[in-house]
Amino acid sequence: MNYFSSDFTLGILGGGQLGKMMLYTTRKFDIKTKVIDPSESAPSRLACDDFETGDLMDFDTVVNFGRTVDVLTFEIENVNVDALETLEDEGIKVFPSSKTLRTIQNKATQKLFYRDNDIPTSPFSRFAYTSEIKDAVDNGGLSYPFVWKSAQFGYDGMGVKIVRRYTDLIDLPNVECIAEELVPFKHELAVIVARNEDGDLKTYPVVEMEFHPEANQVEYVICPARIPDTIAKKAELVALRTASAFEHVGLLAVEMFQTQDDEILVNEVAPRPHNSGHYSIEGSYTSQFEQQIRAILNLPLGKTESTVAGVMVNLVGAEDYTGDVVYENIEKIMTMEGVTPHIYGKKQTRPFRKMGHVTIVNSDVNEARRIAEEVKKTIKVISATNTK
Amino acid sequence: MNYFSSDFTLGILGGGQLGKMMLYTTRKFDIKTKVIDPSESAPSRLACDDFETGDLMDFDTVVNFGRTVDVLTFEIENVNVDALETLEDEGIKVFPSSKTLRTIQNKATQKLFYRDNDIPTSPFSRFAYTSEIKDAVDNGGLSYPFVWKSAQFGYDGMGVKIVRRYTDLIDLPNVECIAEELVPFKHELAVIVARNEDGDLKTYPVVEMEFHPEANQVEYVICPARIPDTIAKKAELVALRTASAFEHVGLLAVEMFQTQDDEILVNEVAPRPHNSGHYSIEGSYTSQFEQQIRAILNLPLGKTESTVAGVMVNLVGAEDYTGDVVYENIEKIMTMEGVTPHIYGKKQTRPFRKMGHVTIVNSDVNEARRIAEEVKKTIKVISATNTK
Repeated sequence: MNYFSSDFTLGILGGGQLGKMMLYTTRKFDIKTKVIDPSESAPSRLACDDFETGDLMDFDTVVNFGRTVDVLTFEIENVNVDALETLEDEGIKVFPSSKTLRTIQNKATQKLFYRDNDIPTSPFSRFAYTSEIKDAVDNGGLSYPFVWKSAQFGYDGMGVKIVRRYTDLIDLPNVECIAEELVPFKHELAVIVARNEDGDLKTYPVVEMEFHPEANQVEYVICPARIPDTIAKKAELVALRTASAFEHVGLLAVEMFQTQDDEILVNEVAPRPHNSGHYSIEGSYTSQFEQQIRAILNLPLGKTESTVAGVMVNLVGAEDYTGDVVYENIEKIMTMEGVTPHIYGKKQTRPFRKMGHVTIVNSDVNEARRIAEEVKKTIKVISATNTK
Repeated sequence: MNYFSSDFTLGILGGGQLGKMMLYTTRKFDIKTKVIDPSESAPSRLACDDFETGDLMDFDTVVNFGRTVDVLTFEIENVNVDALETLEDEGIKVFPSSKTLRTIQNKATQKLFYRDNDIPTSPFSRFAYTSEIKDAVDNGGLSYPFVWKSAQFGYDGMGVKIVRRYTDLIDLPNVECIAEELVPFKHELAVIVARNEDGDLKTYPVVEMEFHPEANQVEYVICPARIPDTIAKKAELVALRTASAFEHVGLLAVEMFQTQDDEILVNEVAPRPHNSGHYSIEGSYTSQFEQQIRAILNLPLGKTESTVAGVMVNLVGAEDYTGDVVYENIEKIMTMEGVTPHIYGKKQTRPFRKMGHVTIVNSDVNEARRIAEEVKKTIKVISATNTK
């Protein structure tokens, strides 16, 4: 297929920030794109050739959209996977595949997949309903503390909870879920693997998610991870084995724990560009967004090495602010060396909403990390009115 | 002014490839943009917030467009400069300024400006009409060979000719022109200077334009230039002095000759992102396009150093091909290390039309140069039908 001609169209389900950043590459390569998103003001509404609104969970909407493109991809997992399968049956190329997405969409199925494929992951139990967990604990089949995860569409902070005692269970939705052993890890690591249809494989360097010591939230994504080479090699191998097991086409971001015993356990995966790879726009030979386009179009994969060290800080809406967004001190952080803000273009902020990110690159990773801390102290995502 | 709010609009005159690449940054920063270009299929028609068609040389069109934006810039020099001046008088910020553009638009005025400001440049004579040149030669005021340049809107290959004998003059248009001494140079160099309204100044590293030994055309732009440090320093200083003389706001690309005696002479300047800075998208901490946005919005300037060496090759339409463009072997060059094609999105090719460029980055400049040669031998910009 000639992607560099006006006869070809790439379809993208979802027009959020990940899709927006993928469009940097389709503009650069002049590849025709069509985007669908529920919101008329989605960040990707510009820079694509065609934009339409629609419900990505609706079977007919996704099938009808997919029939108008040559290759279909998605930038979020919450899309109608039956529709993707129908499109595949009709001969439309869908990458990553519906099979991969179906396995990943359900966290119980995802965990079983690791177990079936000999991919190291933390021990877990599966429950049809949260209410069944209490019995398991009472019977001695499970003990506190553990991590509760909703099987379907779980997201950090919404579908995940650390359960330390019975009362922590009370507020949880009564849905299909898993209870995972709480892993006291040294580091949370991630590796992005790229694989095209021809089976060419490349991995990005291991990145480290540095957590806030009290808030238990990722504060900095650091590339390269400040870990010994032997651990990095181990993490890369586990990531490669995971992508191979999925026979994945596209990017697969593999999040892992480095345990106290220096074991590597897969936590979860995302079949798309990922927050842990945002640094690559400034720090790598090939950004993860360009790599995703290369991989799903079966183009040769780009070089995944870094040209410089990179640290990424998320820009999330400050607590107590809701409304028209203001990026306080953005010009101040732009005076700092190697600092690039990325503003996703969401007009309204609310507490903890992902509004953008900032990349700090430097030839020295420790210096980048130091500047990142300054960035974090300086910029604030607020609104004109404090709603406290 | 808060650029990162929906109340602000940046206007861009011209929607060609340079504007298109500027829009990568306005999308990244979520800055609202409005673009005007004569062609409905201009490369920038996507990725801006608003696009309209119009004649950039028409006074009313430019004034009316300019009145709807907060800051106005241009990506080509062929715009109505009286309109820019009117807009400035009305309080619209126009960067680079109408004064700079007026000086640059006329090559005779540009040369006089260098002379008046003690900026080294090759000796020249100015003529109201090409027909006056013969008399000057007959009177001994001028001798062959020399470079004839049309004063207005001269472009390489159209408004420039090396005149070695009387008959070379015959085909030239009878217009205002200059006759410049032909400089036998060792290297053609370029330095891009960025300056914002506050007067902050930064220079990009010196790049080298390597010419084809026979065709006398630029084949490779190489960063850093393969010249001694002392020459590089000299070139940087001349470029800085030039930008300061213009009191320039925005990017100024300064093209220079390194003579056989290692003198630096300014050839000409461009008040915008420039072909000689395309490598910076992949090779620099801050791309020239981001830097232009930072400079004209009076934001802090980004770091201009390179992270890796870069070589740029233009993709121009092959001789004998006119029609719907085909990028032959584009996938083959994408297998080569550190190679990124940029496709501008012009649907029709014709001989020598600028259709895109390819950047090759590598930690070793000589290796990048070697791969660039392979790229040049491999990719061809053709059409489905050979028109020979």
